[in-house]
Amino acid sequence: MRRHPLSDRRFIAETIAIGSELLVGGRSDSNSLFITEQLGTCGIEVRFKSIVGDHRTDIVNTIQTAVRRAGVIVMTGGLGPTVDDCTREAVAEVAGRRLARRKEAFEGMAARLAQWGRTPNKGQLRQALIPSGAVVLTNPVGSAPGFALSWKSALVIALPGVPREMEAMMEHAVIPFITERFAQSATHLSHPILRSVFHTCGLSEADVDSRLHGLIAKRTPVDLGLLASPMGVLVSLTTKPHHSSSRTILDPLEGEVRTRLGEWIFAEGQDTMEAVVGRLLSKQELTVAVAESCTGGLIGHRLTQVPGSSAYLDRGAICYSNQAKMDMLGVPAESIAAHGAVSREVASAMAKGIRERAGVSVGLSVTGIAGPGGATESKPVGLVYVGLDGGAGDTITKEFRFHGDRSVIKQRSSQAALDLLRRWLIARESR
Amino acid sequence: MRRHPLSDRRFIAETIAIGSELLVGGRSDSNSLFITEQLGTCGIEVRFKSIVGDHRTDIVNTIQTAVRRAGVIVMTGGLGPTVDDCTREAVAEVAGRRLARRKEAFEGMAARLAQWGRTPNKGQLRQALIPSGAVVLTNPVGSAPGFALSWKSALVIALPGVPREMEAMMEHAVIPFITERFAQSATHLSHPILRSVFHTCGLSEADVDSRLHGLIAKRTPVDLGLLASPMGVLVSLTTKPHHSSSRTILDPLEGEVRTRLGEWIFAEGQDTMEAVVGRLLSKQELTVAVAESCTGGLIGHRLTQVPGSSAYLDRGAICYSNQAKMDMLGVPAESIAAHGAVSREVASAMAKGIRERAGVSVGLSVTGIAGPGGATESKPVGLVYVGLDGGAGDTITKEFRFHGDRSVIKQRSSQAALDLLRRWLIARESR
Repeated sequence: MRRHPLSDRRFIAETIAIGSELLVGGRSDSNSLFITEQLGTCGIEVRFKSIVGDHRTDIVNTIQTAVRRAGVIVMTGGLGPTVDDCTREAVAEVAGRRLARRKEAFEGMAARLAQWGRTPNKGQLRQALIPSGAVVLTNPVGSAPGFALSWKSALVIALPGVPREMEAMMEHAVIPFITERFAQSATHLSHPILRSVFHTCGLSEADVDSRLHGLIAKRTPVDLGLLASPMGVLVSLTTKPHHSSSRTILDPLEGEVRTRLGEWIFAEGQDTMEAVVGRLLSKQELTVAVAESCTGGLIGHRLTQVPGSSAYLDRGAICYSNQAKMDMLGVPAESIAAHGAVSREVASAMAKGIRERAGVSVGLSVTGIAGPGGATESKPVGLVYVGLDGGAGDTITKEFRFHGDRSVIKQRSSQAALDLLRRWLIARESR
Repeated sequence: MRRHPLSDRRFIAETIAIGSELLVGGRSDSNSLFITEQLGTCGIEVRFKSIVGDHRTDIVNTIQTAVRRAGVIVMTGGLGPTVDDCTREAVAEVAGRRLARRKEAFEGMAARLAQWGRTPNKGQLRQALIPSGAVVLTNPVGSAPGFALSWKSALVIALPGVPREMEAMMEHAVIPFITERFAQSATHLSHPILRSVFHTCGLSEADVDSRLHGLIAKRTPVDLGLLASPMGVLVSLTTKPHHSSSRTILDPLEGEVRTRLGEWIFAEGQDTMEAVVGRLLSKQELTVAVAESCTGGLIGHRLTQVPGSSAYLDRGAICYSNQAKMDMLGVPAESIAAHGAVSREVASAMAKGIRERAGVSVGLSVTGIAGPGGATESKPVGLVYVGLDGGAGDTITKEFRFHGDRSVIKQRSSQAALDLLRRWLIARESR
């Protein structure tokens, strides 16, 4: 059992997301991930996350709990103009402070509203109320200011719940504030917590685990994380807090992960499969068209999530019916009759058909059984063929037998098709 | 300020999600939403949610906090076979119990593994360790059993983190256990917390707010929630706990919401736009084909998320380039030259083209500028046209000016197109 005592509270953080909709599920707390990443750059580790409704007594209770175990508490939400928004009141109550309208809070808000041709209304005036002794944190993109209060040797920070506003304030107000505060109190900032993420496709979690066996020696201050999803297995390396040599330790481990997993890694960090494929296509000045049966448009949707994808994506055919496969792609009726619509032969004909009709460099196809219906004795739910045609007889097909529900099989299929294209593009590059 | 004291702890619940990946963002806690809904049926309100990593001391700390404020504590995760999984140990430590292998826990697991032709390995044997005095909760779909422990007059429940297993255990073990426990202790179950959800499309949050003005009289024990997203505004009615007449109060309010929002409501509860459209098409025995430019396949993807959609969706054309619009849909080159690819005329020609070529009842089209590039002086990012062609000169087009980034504009566009189809189908039904 790794020891992980509640000591050195200064470098332990807790996030508190406030809003009744977060409890019942209308909205989910994505803010805490950004906060975790940002605080990590100062060596502060988020160890607890709390979610609480718009109830003053519950918020008070949650702040009291947080201050016992964390030195940095970042609250999001409950700073809006309505009476439901009671974060200000809860912080004032818990810390025994008075709420008063603060000049710098009011002026920042009034200036922001003036840009939009408005003046503060009654609710917005409430937003300028700040607990006494707190530092006002200016909101560069919205009207609600935030604040930071030192209390019981913890730093209690309140930010708006709107992600865009919270993000801007974390970067431009909170992180500089924490850095300066540590400097003033002659406390050295902890060393940043570093995290590297590798996205793999095509290996099972057990495969990845066995390839990475023995990677991290005992006592090396790095955690290895594996996380399986329909898109593949994510591998993360996270340095433990308070290690001055984090970068020196992490660099060779990153290199080792890349060596051991090789081309199974399709992206790193925030990068995505569709962005990687897009860059490879752009670099090689190639164009693509897709022919989708069981994915129903998901591959096209993913490729077009990338800004500028119109430069390489010409078109796609969602050929759900057999007639559509014949009309849109020229798949021979005899091929469908002989092999079935879900077959290597049809996947191949689809890829070739879309490439020729679109006049593009490469055609990509998927046909399969996403379920729950449509299976036969020889063709179970999850049987999927992907095909790629690069012209001049360069055709590849691959068979997959995926598990999961309809939505998962669609995701896995789209990922397998894009990965086939990625690998083909990489191989072509080195030819 | 609504009073909401921390009294009647029996009916206050807290969820604790355990797993380091939940802190850094590899995975998000979706389990708590299901737990909230299920406990609501017993009148138990989830007022706090906590997330904590795989650190025994932190889990102990979180349980100690929870038991001070909640009478029902549902923990998920940390029951797996690896040494990282330490929920069992944390509960035993906090409550001062011994961990021992329990016969009924072992037998349930062995029986489950035997079905898969396996015997328990060393890690799995650890999963049969249960704190003394706890009741074993059988896992009907996986190998890890859960348990329920009464401690400090709270009920501490531990369940696996895998959603499918957690859901089955909540329904088949936890809810019956709580019901029976209340019955045995001669405590009356609280009245269920009822929640109704209405999904609207096409109205702004301010529009919905003004239409629902004065809906809920003061002192009525129902909360009204509004939540805006790219898919529209969600309206929720949630009864407050401990009200015996919840159903009597909620029914007329639901009726009033339906009357005031009318056809702007596209779905209720867990229902989705694509499922609603699918049912309308099936009922009227109609077929559809889609022609997508800026949505890039998203509409096809959404329609094919519904099992059985192959009965009414014939095909789709993702016509990203102008050439594709001409080739796949027969959009006249002159029309594109005269009006531009993003125009009412081209949307109309796309809908007509896909309907005729696919030989379906109705064609649906979208063309627009998703950004960030592609805008001109007269055609800004977010300008979108949707078109519908039902044959016999029955063509509709609508213009939208959406805000948001590329992904948001794609979502809004797909929703606007499907909503146009939904309204057309409803109007057709009543003809």
